[in-house]
Amino acid sequence: MERTVERTLTIALPDAEIARRLSPPPDGSRIIVWDLGDPAPDVPIDLLVLRYMIPPAELRGLDAVSVRVVQSQTLGFDGVRETLPAGIVYCNAVEVHEASTGELALALILASQRGIGEAVAAQPRGEWAHAQHPGLADKTVLLIGVGGVGREIEKRVAPFDARLVRVARSSRTDDRGEVHGMASLRALLPEADIVVLAVPLAGDTRHLVDAAFLGLLRPGALVVNVARGAVVDTAALVDWLAAGRGRAALDVTDPEPLPADHPLWALPGAIITPHLGGHTDAMAGRVDRVVLEQIRRLREGEPPLNPVLGG
Amino acid sequence: MERTVERTLTIALPDAEIARRLSPPPDGSRIIVWDLGDPAPDVPIDLLVLRYMIPPAELRGLDAVSVRVVQSQTLGFDGVRETLPAGIVYCNAVEVHEASTGELALALILASQRGIGEAVAAQPRGEWAHAQHPGLADKTVLLIGVGGVGREIEKRVAPFDARLVRVARSSRTDDRGEVHGMASLRALLPEADIVVLAVPLAGDTRHLVDAAFLGLLRPGALVVNVARGAVVDTAALVDWLAAGRGRAALDVTDPEPLPADHPLWALPGAIITPHLGGHTDAMAGRVDRVVLEQIRRLREGEPPLNPVLGG
Repeated sequence: MERTVERTLTIALPDAEIARRLSPPPDGSRIIVWDLGDPAPDVPIDLLVLRYMIPPAELRGLDAVSVRVVQSQTLGFDGVRETLPAGIVYCNAVEVHEASTGELALALILASQRGIGEAVAAQPRGEWAHAQHPGLADKTVLLIGVGGVGREIEKRVAPFDARLVRVARSSRTDDRGEVHGMASLRALLPEADIVVLAVPLAGDTRHLVDAAFLGLLRPGALVVNVARGAVVDTAALVDWLAAGRGRAALDVTDPEPLPADHPLWALPGAIITPHLGGHTDAMAGRVDRVVLEQIRRLREGEPPLNPVLGG
Repeated sequence: MERTVERTLTIALPDAEIARRLSPPPDGSRIIVWDLGDPAPDVPIDLLVLRYMIPPAELRGLDAVSVRVVQSQTLGFDGVRETLPAGIVYCNAVEVHEASTGELALALILASQRGIGEAVAAQPRGEWAHAQHPGLADKTVLLIGVGGVGREIEKRVAPFDARLVRVARSSRTDDRGEVHGMASLRALLPEADIVVLAVPLAGDTRHLVDAAFLGLLRPGALVVNVARGAVVDTAALVDWLAAGRGRAALDVTDPEPLPADHPLWALPGAIITPHLGGHTDAMAGRVDRVVLEQIRRLREGEPPLNPVLGG
């Protein structure tokens, strides 16, 4: 493995807050603050950290700049392949958001199953609306996606006395039992009380949840989406909710942000959170850890962590 | 142990729904439906099942009736000692609500920590209000009460990467580590990000959470109450919330139900659910199991399950 000549690395960070957290940088790296706007820096950048949830289209602006490695603050990178200039290595943020996103999945499942949404909505009216709600115990949870986020959801569902059924692209057995393949999905949907989406957005997962999918669910079933909005066919979901056939708890939507006049906002049984996914105060420390590791690897001449595109 | 003479037991159930579920009764017991109103049944009742969340004052009506054993559908029995006529054995509902109440505690913790309340409140305005919220990972959860409900909360907090500190009346060590005594409470409060109340209401837990208790908490701390409303001094909590010093998620309140014009409803950082505790669709099966066991014990001449008062 090539060992780079000792020289000052240039690290571009997207805001003063993260620059403050990472200062002073290890071993004298040079930190600049740049968020892909004008003016572009006139120095070659060794590591560029993107701002959290930057629209992929902005990456086209890297055409005019010399950048070796881009570090994203998100796990998903749908749309980046189409906009990232050639010759730049793009790394996604692994082990930054998985735990928080798994936590949010449980927050959404429990809020919907236990009537937290109804209670909060009744609160401004001072209404003590006692009712029985379904709960999570004894329910069947169909988890679609068993990657990093799926694993965190699985861990957190475990103590709730629910039945967890896992589905991934291909069937297999792991240390926690059976994982069903997508081919079995149609057979599994009628058993599910709760479906949790934790798959990356890709050609075969776009509109995975369509009218046919929803039509196979039990009356009153809950669809939870912490993946990407377009994993769900929004029009089909709107029809299904409007007909009172089931419930949804969505942290991601298509389109996103959801426009103020979109019908989803007002549908019965829908809880919508504004892509809170991994965004907790646990995030900063985990981002910093990834950036420091990338700096170390650049200095040592090691390949970067989690390169998913380019290079 | 005395073996009773074979005879027909009379079981009084509070509504037609539970009567339907338990019919036909085992071994020819006689079922009547009675909810402590007029007219009182003119037969001696072997087992009287109370309706869920009946006000204890109504138990005074048992004065005019012959009842051997009363089975409650709740775990807490504050106020029953004062109203139960002499000579009646009162049994509380153990292993009916603990899991659901533990589940609700997590629902409330996660809803408050992850901004579900804010999101639901913004939904009618079609407002995509992305913000960072504190989360549960890496937080310190102070669990006060390690009985049946406390144990269920503990199990469910475990996979969330939080630090759990347990407090009970007296200090001890169990299979899961240290339990601090109430005497240490003042020293532990300043470390807590989240306090969860899971103690029975008794002389020494009434107004446990008062102005002094709240004053020791960190700015922004969360108080979760799934115990009984009067474990909290409501006036002190209102002052603390109104001053923006912390947050609360309350399934129980004092007074309860909370009157429509009570200031708690509108305070920032407060989530109020209408005593949903153990009330999920997992409840009915668990109540039936307890009632059937009581019938079996009465028939076999065994002492009843979970007698807590009388007899």
